[in-house]
Amino acid sequence: MRIWHTALALFIGGPALAAPSALAADIAKWRDSHAEAVVTQLADMIAIDSVAASPAGLQRQADMLVAALAARGFKAQLLDGKGGPPVVFGALATPGARRTVVFYAHYDGQPVVAAQWATPPFDPVMRDAAGKSVAWRGAKLDPEWRLYGRGAGDDKAAIAAFLAGFDAVRASGRKPSVNIKVVWEGEEEAGSPHLESVLAGNRALLAGDLWLIGDGPVHQSRRPLVSFGARGVMGLEMTIYGPGRALHDGHYGNWAPNPAAMAANLVAAMRDDDGNILIPGFADDVRPLSAAEAAAIAALPPVEAELKRSLALGRSEGKDGLTLSTMRPALNVRGLGAGQTGAAAANAIPTQAVVSLDFRLVPGQTPVGVRRKVETFLTARGWTITDREPDSAARAASHRLVRLGWEMGYPALRADMTTPVARAVIAAAQSATAAPVGVLPMMGGSVPLHMFDTVFGAPIIGLPIANHDNNQHAANENLRLQNLWDGIGAYAAIIGGLDW
Amino acid sequence: MRIWHTALALFIGGPALAAPSALAADIAKWRDSHAEAVVTQLADMIAIDSVAASPAGLQRQADMLVAALAARGFKAQLLDGKGGPPVVFGALATPGARRTVVFYAHYDGQPVVAAQWATPPFDPVMRDAAGKSVAWRGAKLDPEWRLYGRGAGDDKAAIAAFLAGFDAVRASGRKPSVNIKVVWEGEEEAGSPHLESVLAGNRALLAGDLWLIGDGPVHQSRRPLVSFGARGVMGLEMTIYGPGRALHDGHYGNWAPNPAAMAANLVAAMRDDDGNILIPGFADDVRPLSAAEAAAIAALPPVEAELKRSLALGRSEGKDGLTLSTMRPALNVRGLGAGQTGAAAANAIPTQAVVSLDFRLVPGQTPVGVRRKVETFLTARGWTITDREPDSAARAASHRLVRLGWEMGYPALRADMTTPVARAVIAAAQSATAAPVGVLPMMGGSVPLHMFDTVFGAPIIGLPIANHDNNQHAANENLRLQNLWDGIGAYAAIIGGLDW
Repeated sequence: MRIWHTALALFIGGPALAAPSALAADIAKWRDSHAEAVVTQLADMIAIDSVAASPAGLQRQADMLVAALAARGFKAQLLDGKGGPPVVFGALATPGARRTVVFYAHYDGQPVVAAQWATPPFDPVMRDAAGKSVAWRGAKLDPEWRLYGRGAGDDKAAIAAFLAGFDAVRASGRKPSVNIKVVWEGEEEAGSPHLESVLAGNRALLAGDLWLIGDGPVHQSRRPLVSFGARGVMGLEMTIYGPGRALHDGHYGNWAPNPAAMAANLVAAMRDDDGNILIPGFADDVRPLSAAEAAAIAALPPVEAELKRSLALGRSEGKDGLTLSTMRPALNVRGLGAGQTGAAAANAIPTQAVVSLDFRLVPGQTPVGVRRKVETFLTARGWTITDREPDSAARAASHRLVRLGWEMGYPALRADMTTPVARAVIAAAQSATAAPVGVLPMMGGSVPLHMFDTVFGAPIIGLPIANHDNNQHAANENLRLQNLWDGIGAYAAIIGGLDW
Repeated sequence: MRIWHTALALFIGGPALAAPSALAADIAKWRDSHAEAVVTQLADMIAIDSVAASPAGLQRQADMLVAALAARGFKAQLLDGKGGPPVVFGALATPGARRTVVFYAHYDGQPVVAAQWATPPFDPVMRDAAGKSVAWRGAKLDPEWRLYGRGAGDDKAAIAAFLAGFDAVRASGRKPSVNIKVVWEGEEEAGSPHLESVLAGNRALLAGDLWLIGDGPVHQSRRPLVSFGARGVMGLEMTIYGPGRALHDGHYGNWAPNPAAMAANLVAAMRDDDGNILIPGFADDVRPLSAAEAAAIAALPPVEAELKRSLALGRSEGKDGLTLSTMRPALNVRGLGAGQTGAAAANAIPTQAVVSLDFRLVPGQTPVGVRRKVETFLTARGWTITDREPDSAARAASHRLVRLGWEMGYPALRADMTTPVARAVIAAAQSATAAPVGVLPMMGGSVPLHMFDTVFGAPIIGLPIANHDNNQHAANENLRLQNLWDGIGAYAAIIGGLDW
């Protein structure tokens, strides 16, 4: 099973696979004896409702993290969020170190619909592999157990792994191999609308030689992963208008425009069942994969059959396989709402339909360009675009009226995987584990990497740790304990062993 | 403005327009002096939550109506609903009368979503033309005021108008011109699944020479209407399955099938933005309009421009105009639901999408035929159909899996408008009003007329009274008082003056 890794090494000069390092052995020992404390620290974080709907929860989480850094000797502070939640910053110089690594993660979680959760989203619960709740305090922690709660995997796991990894390196008697800075933001799940101005306003304070991005899941094969980018993202809510009041659909059906049918027809004109985006020219600007990137993807172990089984999927969209598919731009329909379904369905033409979308962007695309293409497409199809709730006169004046609510978006980033620092990070990650580390040119998910590039121009590399099946962005989010253990090892390897 | 009516008369032998009759004058006088009591009776009915979700409310309403009939000398009883709510039955013989008219209406209302109502749906409130709540008890009742509440227009208005019309005839010193029977059901808004067996089980008891159907709105011009049929209806809920758990749409978008996008594409393949049904052969069996029917429709006054203004519509579906459009089969999208929209929207691929539809059927179509055509269409497009919630194995075994929840449906009916009884009903309705009575071959809405035809074979004619803008089937349903006054006049004219 190592063939894939060797093939990849030909392209990007990755490390030969070796036994875990002496550091790794020390870290594993520390981890075993501190497991409950590490999980407790994560559980304490999950118990804080640090989501956009709760500014107080975001503040509490930020305060807790500043205290955690200060307790470890960091110069720690909250940076003003420039209109967003505060950014947690910490710095710890290592005498003699040549390089500075800035560790990025985010302490906010996706919105929750509490009713969809098996247990409350901010009440961390441990469950075994069968999903049964277990009393974990004082127990021997099974690595297949999972801790449930909003943010468990996305992205409080990365913060917990950093803190524990740091503690483990220090406990091993070693000093860090690099100067350390920490930037933990609280607005990632809202598209980081204020982060760039925070970064730009603290350019000197935050300067470093590498941004190490702790976000996203590892490979579906459960192998550790180093990633070199992330897709961009841009949200769009489209509200489509029908009659000014709901109408009996017997007396008016076929005459009064049905906004739910219009919404369906519009979505179908934008995207087919196989994920193909039908908006003209949408992919014109897409930068193709390099040979090294294509080889890295080809070298990842196949996971589709097992994923389809675990997700009860009878097919996939397209024929490219998972990773290649997520190298393309995506139009995701994340919500549809019109009228009523189920027992509450009334035989009425609804007054409006709402379509909630997000676009995933790839290198070459920009939010402005995506917006322009979508709006050109809509206009060409006869839609009148508005950005506010229309009054009756505006509704009556248009054949097809759509209100567009664009969210702040940001572009993708896919960095060079063949630089010295890239090789060094892969080597450090590999030193922490006996399993072959996967190399991913770009995550399908989004992290605002472009901002670090724009403001600092420094290399940006991702070190995800969460299990792929962590229910990220959905109900019952969780973190598999083995992923936390692996993450601690990976962070410790970077903190204690990275150099280039 | 009478040209339309005269033109129509050429085809169906309708009445010459005349001044209201002596009976009409007496009725108007009675109505003026009993207005508050009449509205109170309707308000008392609205205050009862006789909707499918409340069997107790249905029972209370039925009990109240039996008592109301008994108080007027009817032999009144509840007929067993054969699994549905009880059917209210009453009979009153008129010595010397040759004909028996069975008055049908329904005492149940559409489901409610209370949060969408300006005031609670079962708490009747009077509002003036500007929508301002008014204290109406003891006040002079403005005919443009409206009484709000579920069932106000659909269909308690018809029951209230019958009762008041009956009282008014009696108060005028006249005896009814016909034997009277009353059948008021409690399951119309659920598709009347048990009514046919109730009718068939009480064939002799319910026999009559004419079924007079009190349901639906009058013409959008506010002119009184006699109708000769109604479209059929059939509800369908389609549940479309995506991944077994919601997935991060960055990491899985473009690979894991998105059920919301599948739902949109499916709806778009079934119906376009102009109401055209794209299911192959869907309209094959449709019986075309007769010359008389087409002429009756052409003779109705145009209402589209005013309707578009009041509904804030910039266009209509198709180019046929309102009434002709509703002579065609319809596929109405009454609800769409997938994932979340608005602030709760998460960047996730939903696990399922739900599409709630109703089909409106026209003569020549049957529910069985519609179902067959829809299922053939789905199968031809690669969908696997199930009628139950699928388990993981069933989901994984299908490329496209759809759960179909078919509601009980029934066919349309469009009766001959040229028979003696048809002419007599039109004449009686015309005798009640100075306004030209419109003649509608078939209502766009649905009433289970076919059952009366199947079981009894007697003529079936509709006498709607509610205002067209009554928010029927939606929030803030209401009845315009002038429509109640007109309805009382129309019912009194039938009860006191119909003969053929």
